[in-house]
Amino acid sequence: MDATLQEVNTALHEAQVAFLSYKNLSGKKKAEFLNAIADEIETLGQELVSTAMRETNLPEARIIGERGRTTGHCRMFAKLVEEGSWVDARVDTAQPDRQPLPKVDIRKMSVPVGPVVVFGAANFPLAYSTAGGDTASALAAGCPVIVKAHPAHSDTSDLVAKAIQKAMKKTGMPNNVFQHLHGKGFEVGQALVKHPHTKAVGFTGSLVGGKALFDLANQRPEPIPVFAEMSSINPVILLPESLAKDCDKTATLLASSITQGVGQFCTNPGLIIAVEGEGLKNLIAKLTEEIKKALPGTMLHQGIADNYHKRIAQTLTQQGIKIEGEASEKGDTSQGQPLVASVPAPEFLKNHLLAEEVFGPFSLIVKCKDLAELHSVINNGKGQLTSSVIGRDEEVTKHKNLLNILIEKAGRLIINGVPTGVEVCPSMNHGGPYPATTDSRFTAVGTDAIKRFVRPVTFQNFPDSLLPDELKESNPLKIWRYRDGEWLKG
Amino acid sequence: MDATLQEVNTALHEAQVAFLSYKNLSGKKKAEFLNAIADEIETLGQELVSTAMRETNLPEARIIGERGRTTGHCRMFAKLVEEGSWVDARVDTAQPDRQPLPKVDIRKMSVPVGPVVVFGAANFPLAYSTAGGDTASALAAGCPVIVKAHPAHSDTSDLVAKAIQKAMKKTGMPNNVFQHLHGKGFEVGQALVKHPHTKAVGFTGSLVGGKALFDLANQRPEPIPVFAEMSSINPVILLPESLAKDCDKTATLLASSITQGVGQFCTNPGLIIAVEGEGLKNLIAKLTEEIKKALPGTMLHQGIADNYHKRIAQTLTQQGIKIEGEASEKGDTSQGQPLVASVPAPEFLKNHLLAEEVFGPFSLIVKCKDLAELHSVINNGKGQLTSSVIGRDEEVTKHKNLLNILIEKAGRLIINGVPTGVEVCPSMNHGGPYPATTDSRFTAVGTDAIKRFVRPVTFQNFPDSLLPDELKESNPLKIWRYRDGEWLKG
Repeated sequence: MDATLQEVNTALHEAQVAFLSYKNLSGKKKAEFLNAIADEIETLGQELVSTAMRETNLPEARIIGERGRTTGHCRMFAKLVEEGSWVDARVDTAQPDRQPLPKVDIRKMSVPVGPVVVFGAANFPLAYSTAGGDTASALAAGCPVIVKAHPAHSDTSDLVAKAIQKAMKKTGMPNNVFQHLHGKGFEVGQALVKHPHTKAVGFTGSLVGGKALFDLANQRPEPIPVFAEMSSINPVILLPESLAKDCDKTATLLASSITQGVGQFCTNPGLIIAVEGEGLKNLIAKLTEEIKKALPGTMLHQGIADNYHKRIAQTLTQQGIKIEGEASEKGDTSQGQPLVASVPAPEFLKNHLLAEEVFGPFSLIVKCKDLAELHSVINNGKGQLTSSVIGRDEEVTKHKNLLNILIEKAGRLIINGVPTGVEVCPSMNHGGPYPATTDSRFTAVGTDAIKRFVRPVTFQNFPDSLLPDELKESNPLKIWRYRDGEWLKG
Repeated sequence: MDATLQEVNTALHEAQVAFLSYKNLSGKKKAEFLNAIADEIETLGQELVSTAMRETNLPEARIIGERGRTTGHCRMFAKLVEEGSWVDARVDTAQPDRQPLPKVDIRKMSVPVGPVVVFGAANFPLAYSTAGGDTASALAAGCPVIVKAHPAHSDTSDLVAKAIQKAMKKTGMPNNVFQHLHGKGFEVGQALVKHPHTKAVGFTGSLVGGKALFDLANQRPEPIPVFAEMSSINPVILLPESLAKDCDKTATLLASSITQGVGQFCTNPGLIIAVEGEGLKNLIAKLTEEIKKALPGTMLHQGIADNYHKRIAQTLTQQGIKIEGEASEKGDTSQGQPLVASVPAPEFLKNHLLAEEVFGPFSLIVKCKDLAELHSVINNGKGQLTSSVIGRDEEVTKHKNLLNILIEKAGRLIINGVPTGVEVCPSMNHGGPYPATTDSRFTAVGTDAIKRFVRPVTFQNFPDSLLPDELKESNPLKIWRYRDGEWLKG
């Protein structure tokens, strides 16, 4: 049932109370909680899998995979905070004899920002929803979390929320350090973002939705950061030599990336850019063949399916658009039918609509007459989560200047690979310049996602006993610290 | 002369061209540039000192000190980027045999965001203006800088700009990696912030000015971050026992912090909070004595002096306000006369105006009837750059719960010290929750200030030769990197 505005208010007050004790828990205690969340999610067993399958139309293997990713990131953050070096501790010891002025003892570390509101994502019922990356990283940072369940999978969300609450009790966490609310319309979400106790927001979804929350958060009397991961068409640039020699392999790789999960990934390769010629012809032929064989898939919910059909219809009426291949089997209105179209670069450059995300198993090939035109297309591109270049090694080296531009437009550069398949690891950056996200300085995936929910605080002239353990002179936690200009551990 | 909108546009286009080569320079090359800036500023000699004195009314010792701080931070950032570990490199090597899916090689580092616009600050003609902390950290990060000179010290700004441009030529930097524009009204600043090539903004000044730039930047088609350091009254909490025993020492310390530089510091202690009693009476008596002896000082410019007088007059008419002490010598209209007033806590809590910054040598003592009331005052406080607690060690320990609240309201906590005197070092955080700044996650002082002007980028499956040196397998720069879960150097 939808939360009332009174319930939103109460939830934030409870979260603030929880914050004042939760923030001071040791990394070890928070790790116990995060590990217990992973355990409790696994304990849900088949019920969670069946419920998520029913609500999202995703196949069993995908849900099981996503569950593994979810418990995986909970345990990854547990390990991170138990080890403790993530707080980026800096220690500058006193120099009482310094001239002209003595220097006092100054130390700094990251501290949690306060209650965080997380919006469940439609396309990741587990890994980017209730116990998703935003929730896990915020809890790891020391922030209470209020999840607004995605209405399209509210039963799944309820199950996971109960698992988290069980873990909360089992590990003796402060009450209400995790809370779960429902809200079908905009009211609950808006009230959550506007509440004075809310200090940050995590969101994965549409550009319209993310931008609305961003604007709302900035218009508050006290503006707060919104980490919205929104819109990306993940251009894949095919270099000529590779196109001539490896076009079959590339086409197969692309077809699988385009159709995977009915194309419902933020890293779906929605744009393919190449110079016209025999190679591109052959690639399109092979890609068409693969797309024809691909099956339509039921999309996450009817709204997403309707939007896909609307956007496809709209795209196909644009000037210069040519259908290159579509799945032979027609789906019903709940399904996304794989489709690849092409457009000459000049038409693409004139038409902003063609550079906007079509969420589903669709990709647009931009045909350039030469490398100069390909450069224009890339130069005109907006911010992306990823950009990929497919080319032979020497060829990529020859076109190094392309990388110099692409790096300005994306958060992750890939050579000879597709953007789908986001590895969860310290070196991952899942983010990118606007409109890919609202804050390109932070990642939503990997250990560094924790940085979204902290801020630095300096402790000046503190007696040792009043310093947090992370900053105490003896370094009792044996963490890495930057001390008087040197990295030291223990 | 004020820049035209055409000149702003040209400047940003030049900055973008400069960016595409400057961003790829080695740390060593950027360090040469930053060191040369420091040298050229020193070469300006007495002319710079006299010009800054004439334009800002600040005394010679202060200008010389500020020059030292300015050349100091240029050299500090030079050292930082020459060493190179600041890019926060992360390396996860490939695991081709991993099950169920192989893992490709993934590496990540910070890269510069693009052209940065810096607004000169009225109160730091050198250290937070043309070659100030924002400029030095942005150049260190690899971002071209366009400075809009503060109109109150445009000659000083011109001199420093010429020094930077000389350093730019001497060290073979790309043309226009640093540019300097004038603009007395709002037009030039607004056009700079709105230009699509601008990727971040640094500002130090009023809440009204900073908030206006923040809103403008968020309303752009592509929102960009604004690092505005705006408004702080830096509460100092005096604990009872210390107040009883050390009140003379504390009063002297406070008086000097309040009156230093005619109170024109963002870290001026504008609020003193204590419980009523004999101790506070004695402290006020001693503080009054010190303030009476203090001399009025000519303020930075007439606008600041006018505003100080207006705000003082406004404050003194508020309910419950009592003047405790003011400088015996009356100044003229260009001067700021030191003044300390007091107010009972209930009146303070009712009146938002009293919690707003009065920029100048003024401080307000909030008299609380007991510790509970003192807690209310602290709980109601807004974001600050700093909060200080003055108390004997055991006493501070006893009031540890105060620190638990204060940490939510400030970027720096000080025990037994005053907020003025911001050490430039890795552990410094000069920032804080809104309205102290527009982004509490970043510092404007110290080595970490460089983080404001970078974003992470992941390099996936790159051939070694195409990786930046920071990420190459052999670690040719011998920097600290987080590699497969371990911090390693070289």
